[in-house]
Amino acid sequence: MRIVLDAMGSDMHPAPEIQAAIQAYDRWGDPIMLVGPEALLKQQMQATSAPAEAVTIIHAPDVLEMTDKPAETARGKTDTSMAVGMDLVKQGQADAFITAGNTGGAMATALFRLGRIRGVKRPAVSPAIPVQGSMTLMLDMGANADCRPEWLVQFALMGAVYMERAFDRPNPRVGLLSNGEEAGKGNQLVKETFPLLEKSGLNFVGNLEPKEIYAGHADVVVTDGFSGNVFLKTSESVARFLLEMVRDEIRSNPISTLGGLLAKSAFARVRQVLDPSEYGAAPLLGIDGLVFIGHGRSDVKALVSAVRVARQAVETGVLEATREAIQGKLGQWGMAAE
Amino acid sequence: MRIVLDAMGSDMHPAPEIQAAIQAYDRWGDPIMLVGPEALLKQQMQATSAPAEAVTIIHAPDVLEMTDKPAETARGKTDTSMAVGMDLVKQGQADAFITAGNTGGAMATALFRLGRIRGVKRPAVSPAIPVQGSMTLMLDMGANADCRPEWLVQFALMGAVYMERAFDRPNPRVGLLSNGEEAGKGNQLVKETFPLLEKSGLNFVGNLEPKEIYAGHADVVVTDGFSGNVFLKTSESVARFLLEMVRDEIRSNPISTLGGLLAKSAFARVRQVLDPSEYGAAPLLGIDGLVFIGHGRSDVKALVSAVRVARQAVETGVLEATREAIQGKLGQWGMAAE
Repeated sequence: MRIVLDAMGSDMHPAPEIQAAIQAYDRWGDPIMLVGPEALLKQQMQATSAPAEAVTIIHAPDVLEMTDKPAETARGKTDTSMAVGMDLVKQGQADAFITAGNTGGAMATALFRLGRIRGVKRPAVSPAIPVQGSMTLMLDMGANADCRPEWLVQFALMGAVYMERAFDRPNPRVGLLSNGEEAGKGNQLVKETFPLLEKSGLNFVGNLEPKEIYAGHADVVVTDGFSGNVFLKTSESVARFLLEMVRDEIRSNPISTLGGLLAKSAFARVRQVLDPSEYGAAPLLGIDGLVFIGHGRSDVKALVSAVRVARQAVETGVLEATREAIQGKLGQWGMAAE
Repeated sequence: MRIVLDAMGSDMHPAPEIQAAIQAYDRWGDPIMLVGPEALLKQQMQATSAPAEAVTIIHAPDVLEMTDKPAETARGKTDTSMAVGMDLVKQGQADAFITAGNTGGAMATALFRLGRIRGVKRPAVSPAIPVQGSMTLMLDMGANADCRPEWLVQFALMGAVYMERAFDRPNPRVGLLSNGEEAGKGNQLVKETFPLLEKSGLNFVGNLEPKEIYAGHADVVVTDGFSGNVFLKTSESVARFLLEMVRDEIRSNPISTLGGLLAKSAFARVRQVLDPSEYGAAPLLGIDGLVFIGHGRSDVKALVSAVRVARQAVETGVLEATREAIQGKLGQWGMAAE
């Protein structure tokens, strides 16, 4: 298996990427292709005790910066680590690409260098989030702020294929994020998407409010990229706000401080469930090639998880299955390939 | 001061409402008008030791049910406790109306019986939520799933007037919920609303992501009712999910169970900050009369808080100030009164 890792993606690049590549090699035995400025990466690799065969360094002199305008940069800069890494996937020299860099930049670069799967209207950022006792795939979480109903139907199909393959969930339940459970609730987009999902042939379980999503009522939840982003970032913010509040309150007097110390392992387990580094990276479903985006704050563990997630997608043939599913449904759904 | 309380609103009605009315009378000395089926309320009042002058019972034979279709019911049922209670405000016999009943039903009834303030395009459900060290008013949290930019500008103005008056926040900072802080981020609605808020004359602080909202970067945050509802319900769900997870992990072994007991007071304080019953009720800003909606799960404490919130709004002249602000801004903003 040939996984490409953007060495320049995470906030602390390239150190976490180099360590993650070495650990991934130790774990699975396949060398990782690390893309970035060759001299820098060689120098940093030599400072480790890792065997030379653990990584293959691919030279890319430029880096896509957070301050770059994604769409323009994707067109203009052809030698960023993202562009060079994705080209390897495009040319069949690698099976999947992973970056912890800017999401907008990665999506724009992916659209420009790999393009969409034939028939896909829009690709979607599709992270799996922790819910009660399980994981749920949510899309779109930010690539498309304004969406059309037929895009959401395609998100549902792509998400279902992904969960069925990579997460081994047969006949995955598909929900629609809404402001009320009943059919007929929602904004215009939700109201127009609901009947399309009902007749889509997918295992549609209807509108879901956030509490049902967190109770694990669906394997896949679709929404527009604006509401999805609000959902995702609100979840992160509330979790942080709450845990900080608990910590501050516990430290506010000696008895509860002692209590907090005794309950330390419990808090550690809660943090672990919430820790994005456990889940690695989100696929850009709909891109004609396997691309995964990790959080900018990704550490070594998060990047190794990302490699694991990417490997599962490669092994279970997610890309081919998505291509087939889209082709098979287009005629049935009355959508034309573009 | 004359406050009307819907006796039939909360899930456990009318017991919490009756107790809350009695406590509010004890605290502020003004009798509460309780609206509901007279015989039932009289009987329940007699079972208490409260003085007869604590409440004035206003007869309303019917109740707006959760299963009723709000708009149709608001038109058809003229003798529900909501309709009768709001009519008292309309006729100048009361200063404010409070209900813990169905939000959609209350909004529809309010629109039908009290109407909008002249010039207001749409009223908004406007709860104050707890953020780092403070409270922030958010609107719309559910009444208008699809919004236009000029509605959001009016929400901003009404929210600012409310926070300035009832919460004593001079020159309140107004933010716009978005999927990125930078100007230019957002969906179509946000992109079109941003320049209008910039030139509105309000203290506009720009786009805010959920983490900035929870860090207390604004006094008022505006958004469409769909995204707002997602924000609000995601916050509630994550808080519940997280606290349950912490509790379960703490109980999973004896040492952390002991720790949890010692840290009990800290958890109690966290719960208190998050407790909706501390904040009472959300005003329906834009309605031509003071109407407050509490959570269906409201208990006595929550309903007393609601009375407190309503009293503050009456005392600080929120309604008159909103009428004046809307009239003053309409010409300046190039909006016509309807």
